[in-house]
Amino acid sequence: MSLTLSEVFSAIRPVDQTLFPVAAAHLDNLTKPRGSLGRLEELAARLFAISGGAAPTVDPARIYVCAGDHGVADEGVSLFPQAVTRQMVANFLAGGAGINVLGDTAGVDIRVVDAGCLGEPFAAHPRFAGCRVASGTANLAAGPAMSREVCEQALLLGASLAASAKAEGIKALGTGDMGIANTTPSTALFCAYLHLAPEAITGPGTGLDAKGVCRKAGIIGRALALHADVLASGDPVAILAALGGLEIACLAGLVLGAAANKLPIAVDGFISTAAYTAARAMAPAVADYAFLSHASAEPGYQAIMAAMGQKPLLDLGLRLGEGTGAALALFLLRASANIYNNMATFAAAGVSAGE
Amino acid sequence: MSLTLSEVFSAIRPVDQTLFPVAAAHLDNLTKPRGSLGRLEELAARLFAISGGAAPTVDPARIYVCAGDHGVADEGVSLFPQAVTRQMVANFLAGGAGINVLGDTAGVDIRVVDAGCLGEPFAAHPRFAGCRVASGTANLAAGPAMSREVCEQALLLGASLAASAKAEGIKALGTGDMGIANTTPSTALFCAYLHLAPEAITGPGTGLDAKGVCRKAGIIGRALALHADVLASGDPVAILAALGGLEIACLAGLVLGAAANKLPIAVDGFISTAAYTAARAMAPAVADYAFLSHASAEPGYQAIMAAMGQKPLLDLGLRLGEGTGAALALFLLRASANIYNNMATFAAAGVSAGE
Repeated sequence: MSLTLSEVFSAIRPVDQTLFPVAAAHLDNLTKPRGSLGRLEELAARLFAISGGAAPTVDPARIYVCAGDHGVADEGVSLFPQAVTRQMVANFLAGGAGINVLGDTAGVDIRVVDAGCLGEPFAAHPRFAGCRVASGTANLAAGPAMSREVCEQALLLGASLAASAKAEGIKALGTGDMGIANTTPSTALFCAYLHLAPEAITGPGTGLDAKGVCRKAGIIGRALALHADVLASGDPVAILAALGGLEIACLAGLVLGAAANKLPIAVDGFISTAAYTAARAMAPAVADYAFLSHASAEPGYQAIMAAMGQKPLLDLGLRLGEGTGAALALFLLRASANIYNNMATFAAAGVSAGE
Repeated sequence: MSLTLSEVFSAIRPVDQTLFPVAAAHLDNLTKPRGSLGRLEELAARLFAISGGAAPTVDPARIYVCAGDHGVADEGVSLFPQAVTRQMVANFLAGGAGINVLGDTAGVDIRVVDAGCLGEPFAAHPRFAGCRVASGTANLAAGPAMSREVCEQALLLGASLAASAKAEGIKALGTGDMGIANTTPSTALFCAYLHLAPEAITGPGTGLDAKGVCRKAGIIGRALALHADVLASGDPVAILAALGGLEIACLAGLVLGAAANKLPIAVDGFISTAAYTAARAMAPAVADYAFLSHASAEPGYQAIMAAMGQKPLLDLGLRLGEGTGAALALFLLRASANIYNNMATFAAAGVSAGE
């Protein structure tokens, strides 16, 4: 990895806005009432702009499922023991997890990344990509989760995965996460970047009861108070280092790298959206390349979307992470690209256009 | 077609409710927090119940796109000329329409049915199924759209398509429509079956302006007044004959036939949902087999869903019809079936279950 973060940031450019009327003219000429394919037309136009005016394409597509452990798990913020992070990485490699099934269904390649798990390194596997930056984070409610240097390494790991994918011919990316306790750092990041209160957006994660949610919000509030100086600095990398996690920083880097390499990227649910929010704070133009996949069932997600001014594609009550929502969204992106490329025009099909 | 309507009705049975706790126990044992796949788990459980407790399956899946013409087009309720119904049937057969592209993307077979177009019969084609019941309907604002006999024939056509699909090994169905002016009879049917006012739910269809929508609501109000006796009778077949259309009755028959043959059926948007509403009025247990695909962008759709107490799977601003939303929904049904069948259990994957 000779890549540097400043090289990644400087490679990120907004898409050419003049391509949108070109896309609209093409879409309006296809055999359907104007705009009648709704958000699929919006997606098609965005893919056309991302491709710089070439035929939109998403295949082959790949999701990187990034895993990491969290020191804040010591605070009892999850129903599952921390060992489950590793166990689920093994499940991803064996092909038995939700993301494996939905990746197969959607025709999306799944790669698993150990960005920062605890314990022994994983053995080599064809589905395994990337190298661990550190073994878990420190407890963000007691100090910074990561040093700035470690955080930058995790960002660069994600950016380098996007660059490798581009070099291999991948045309669209998706994000996925695994990390016991990672709704806690994600919620803290939403609070920090979007100026939201922990009581307003903290939720049950894998299944806390009301008392547990209340405790979790208190721990997040303590972390935000502890890192008040970092938050006040407005430095997005410092905020990510203080409050984030290794897989979250890796996913933020993946979003940055997708934009730097002009690849569309489907952003999964709660944790991936926190990573996207971090990336957007570092480089606002990543918004042109990112597609928010689905509304997380985490109750704070609505307030987060309102604060970001965005509406995700799907609302199916998913709250699993792993990239499951991104896999479904990549299917919708493929559908949109196919609409753009494969539908007949009014003239070619001999169909009368409307008045 | 020796099939009779009373045979179809008597074959429709609710699914076995005792299968739902069996499905829930299985789903809770897969490697994910309980309920974290949201509506995909709900779909998987419903598919399991529909299959009578066998492994849920949707493949091969097929959408029947049913086309018909409407006498009420004479009232100027559509921006497109009536000839477009035939032109679009030709486009479906040639493979250039939105539904062809989305059917290909979703891996769903597309069959085109001339339930009641105007003009010469269509030539044979591998994608063409079913035989025309009549050449268009009469103007529902001036008299009954169809006789009861013709309406029953169109219902039987749809039911026989479902039976043929079952015999061919099809595991899931979808509905699609084509018929210039068909949001007008559909809106009238929603008003009749759900006791809604035309001013509350009439929308622009393929693109009417506000004045046009107002005129259209007036025409629907006139039709409802003209057929007040039929509405008061509460006879669902008579209501469909008075206000419906040939493709709408065929689609209602397809929904009935799916339930009679224990096949899941993805119901497309505004027009297909009107057909489903008619079928449900005739045989309430069809609800156990039907999956509402997507929220139509027709502005009345929200009020209609509120009246029906249902929430569709997708909300992508689609308002094309043709089965485009059903194709996307069939992908979600496949994803749900694969989750049910292919995910690892906690025990098999060696993953610790939550507290």
